[in-house]
Amino acid sequence: MSMDRLQKLIIEKKNPTVVGLDPRPEYVPPQILAEQIATHGETLEAAAEAFYLFNRGLIDALCDIVPAVKPQSAYYEMLGPAGVLALYKTVNYAKSKGMYVILDGKRNDIGSTAEAYAEAYLGRVTVGNAKLPAFDADSLTVNAYLGSDGILPFLEMCKQFDKSIFALVKTSNPSSGELQDLLCGDRNLSTAVGDLMARIARDTIGEYGYSAIGAVVGATYPSDAQVLRRRLENTFFLVPGYGAQGGGAADVAPCFDRYGRGAIINSSRAILCAWKKTEAGDGSDYQEAARQEALRMQKDIAQVVAIC
Amino acid sequence: MSMDRLQKLIIEKKNPTVVGLDPRPEYVPPQILAEQIATHGETLEAAAEAFYLFNRGLIDALCDIVPAVKPQSAYYEMLGPAGVLALYKTVNYAKSKGMYVILDGKRNDIGSTAEAYAEAYLGRVTVGNAKLPAFDADSLTVNAYLGSDGILPFLEMCKQFDKSIFALVKTSNPSSGELQDLLCGDRNLSTAVGDLMARIARDTIGEYGYSAIGAVVGATYPSDAQVLRRRLENTFFLVPGYGAQGGGAADVAPCFDRYGRGAIINSSRAILCAWKKTEAGDGSDYQEAARQEALRMQKDIAQVVAIC
Repeated sequence: MSMDRLQKLIIEKKNPTVVGLDPRPEYVPPQILAEQIATHGETLEAAAEAFYLFNRGLIDALCDIVPAVKPQSAYYEMLGPAGVLALYKTVNYAKSKGMYVILDGKRNDIGSTAEAYAEAYLGRVTVGNAKLPAFDADSLTVNAYLGSDGILPFLEMCKQFDKSIFALVKTSNPSSGELQDLLCGDRNLSTAVGDLMARIARDTIGEYGYSAIGAVVGATYPSDAQVLRRRLENTFFLVPGYGAQGGGAADVAPCFDRYGRGAIINSSRAILCAWKKTEAGDGSDYQEAARQEALRMQKDIAQVVAIC
Repeated sequence: MSMDRLQKLIIEKKNPTVVGLDPRPEYVPPQILAEQIATHGETLEAAAEAFYLFNRGLIDALCDIVPAVKPQSAYYEMLGPAGVLALYKTVNYAKSKGMYVILDGKRNDIGSTAEAYAEAYLGRVTVGNAKLPAFDADSLTVNAYLGSDGILPFLEMCKQFDKSIFALVKTSNPSSGELQDLLCGDRNLSTAVGDLMARIARDTIGEYGYSAIGAVVGATYPSDAQVLRRRLENTFFLVPGYGAQGGGAADVAPCFDRYGRGAIINSSRAILCAWKKTEAGDGSDYQEAARQEALRMQKDIAQVVAIC
């Protein structure tokens, strides 16, 4: 099972973290962007190629210590078709380096269209007699507002191609409570979403006890995370909000089970922009700076979580 | 205001419908796909180029009678970066023919990432000193599960570049009620979402009385549509579910205001695949078949809605 594969990688590296590859032109070391602008002009293509080269450098610097990457689709779509090509190349490069790739697209739609998204990111597409992969990530984030028939096509693809998905349950942003905290009967909406996902995924539980549908649970609401962790015992948590958004190691601790499993903590900007805080400050040491920040984060979390 | 522009186009053409450009390889006339496979092999590139040519033919056949198109992003993403290029070209071609383009991506994320999506589909991206458009659609569908701070960056882009968005409120699929019908206090979740969107958009109301944030309201739940129409008097409705999903003209009637305004009805498969039901049946008459189906739909809706 795909979620077992992720958990195994985390145990091997003793590192329950994922690096969010969320580039913006201003996060890329100036030298890398300048070279691409010199070649392609001030174009979306220049930025897209710079994103890919930056990502490749980050993946090279991190792949032996970090189990997974999470490219955030928005930052690539921002550059149009050229950006989506950079995303595609990033997914493939990270996989070639043995990393687990969670594509953060928060996709959602009704049945037949959800099927198309599922084929796009996790499955195969039929053209003539050929069955072709499009993005072929290991995992995709999804939004469950449309209900179970919007999620089942993704789950079907998880079963068929050994993949996983993460549904938004309790997100890390300040306004997340406006809808997610609404009380619906005896539970709030985020709990209702978590319960619904757990119910439809219950026949996909792997050897570590986790199903193919994980949950996005923000580090910025640790008491919600604690309640959800107890309730959703077969649900793996993808946890944003550590670092730049204000969550610390103590805040992410409740997301793990008693074996230090069942969760992976995301960090994006702190790692991508680590080069801005070094003595050089010009980006020439961006790989080493990212690696040092990733190691610092691993150590920080190890203070509160022992993985066995 | 962008929503005024859409309403004006609808009034000019006396046609409150939008054509969903949701291609799948099996919807494309065999001749078009075969030619591309002959050139590019059985590849994603072949299917992507066939999608674009098919769309172009449809747009040519419909642009004088239909005010808007709604390309569904999933079907292009399904073909990887080549598919996204076909989407980009489709958006631009439809705009060049004077059609209003609603990109159906159901995007959603937290603040800074929502900003990236908003820049991607509605705004501009900064590369060096240049400010460049990526997809530059007229409108984008979004999912509001993350709350207002996930929507405000889109709204900001609407104001800055005269665009609109449509938030999912009550979707047309069978499972939509699992979450959207949950009772939260004195209203259900879909109503709570509709109210929240209306509140944050209230300073964007245009001359026809509609704000920059519309709502997706499925034709398959006409009684919900009726309640929402009364409650959300400044919210324009994008209505899926007519035709293939089972909604008829009587079902979409409650979505309109007393002037026959404030709603646009989507049809996808019935128009894209109209060629399969003609005498030829081989797709050679796909443009004429699509046009006839679009005219039939216009007439069908005119029986229950008078636009003034």
